[in-house]
Amino acid sequence: MAKVSFGVSARSHHPTRLEVSAREHRLVVDEPEKLGGTDAGPNPLEYMLAALAGCINVTGHLVAKELGFEIRELSMDIMGELNPARFMGRPTEDRSGFTLVKVEVRLEADIGEETRQNWIESVESRCPISDTMGAGTSIEVFLV
Amino acid sequence: MAKVSFGVSARSHHPTRLEVSAREHRLVVDEPEKLGGTDAGPNPLEYMLAALAGCINVTGHLVAKELGFEIRELSMDIMGELNPARFMGRPTEDRSGFTLVKVEVRLEADIGEETRQNWIESVESRCPISDTMGAGTSIEVFLV
Repeated sequence: MAKVSFGVSARSHHPTRLEVSAREHRLVVDEPEKLGGTDAGPNPLEYMLAALAGCINVTGHLVAKELGFEIRELSMDIMGELNPARFMGRPTEDRSGFTLVKVEVRLEADIGEETRQNWIESVESRCPISDTMGAGTSIEVFLV
Repeated sequence: MAKVSFGVSARSHHPTRLEVSAREHRLVVDEPEKLGGTDAGPNPLEYMLAALAGCINVTGHLVAKELGFEIRELSMDIMGELNPARFMGRPTEDRSGFTLVKVEVRLEADIGEETRQNWIESVESRCPISDTMGAGTSIEVFLV
C-alpha cells in the first residue's frame, strides 16, 4: 500500500504553552502550574499516552470486527514513568524518555480467553502508536 | 532523581471515538470521516505529533534559558509517514508505526549558528517525547 502522512503545525505562546493545528482541530499543550506552566491543557507526556489510548480503541474495534465479536465496553488506564533528570540537565545515566509504560485494558465482550489473547496481541502489533512507542522510529529535525 | 509518573484514563464511545481524562483535562480522540470516524477530534497519530511539538517547546525554552538567550518566536511543522497495511491486516513487510517523522523548527533568536546547533541537539536528546519516539520504550499491556 502507498504510504500515508499525517501532520501538525504548532506555535509557541509561552515557554510551556503551545497551540497546535491538526487539520481543522486546535489543541493546547501546556504544563501544570507545579511544573512551571499555566495548565491550559494536558502536557506532552499526557498527549502521548492519549494517542496510545486512542490507537488501542481504533485498532481494537477493527480487530474485533475481523475476529467476529462485538465490543460492549472498552476502557483503559495508562501510566508512564520516567526520570526527569536528563530533561532538567542534571547528571544521570538515565534516558530522558519513558522508561516504562503500563496499559490496563478493560474489555467487555462475549468471547473466551483464547480470543481475548489473540485480540490483545493483534492490537499491540497493529496499532501504529504502540509500534512507534515500543520500537522507536527515525526522527529528522531541521532547524530553519 | 526520583522517577515521576503521568497517566490518563480513557473510555470508548464509538469504534473510533475515545474520551480521555488527564488530570482535570478532557480530550476527544477520533478519526476523520474518510477513515471511518466522526471527526470529533484529532486522530491518534496527530496527538502523538502534537505531543512531540509540545515537548520541543517546553524543552526548547528550558535549554535557551540555560544557554542564556531569549526565544522571540518558536513554531514547528511536523509530518509523520507510515504504511497502513499492517494496521489494516494486509500482508506486508512494513511495520505498523511511523517509518519517518520530519520536524521543521523555526527559531527566532539573537544567536549565532553554533549556539543554534547546540540548542537543537540538546533539545532533541533531552525532550522526553523525542527520546521515547526515537529509541522506543517498554510497554506492558494487561488485559483485564
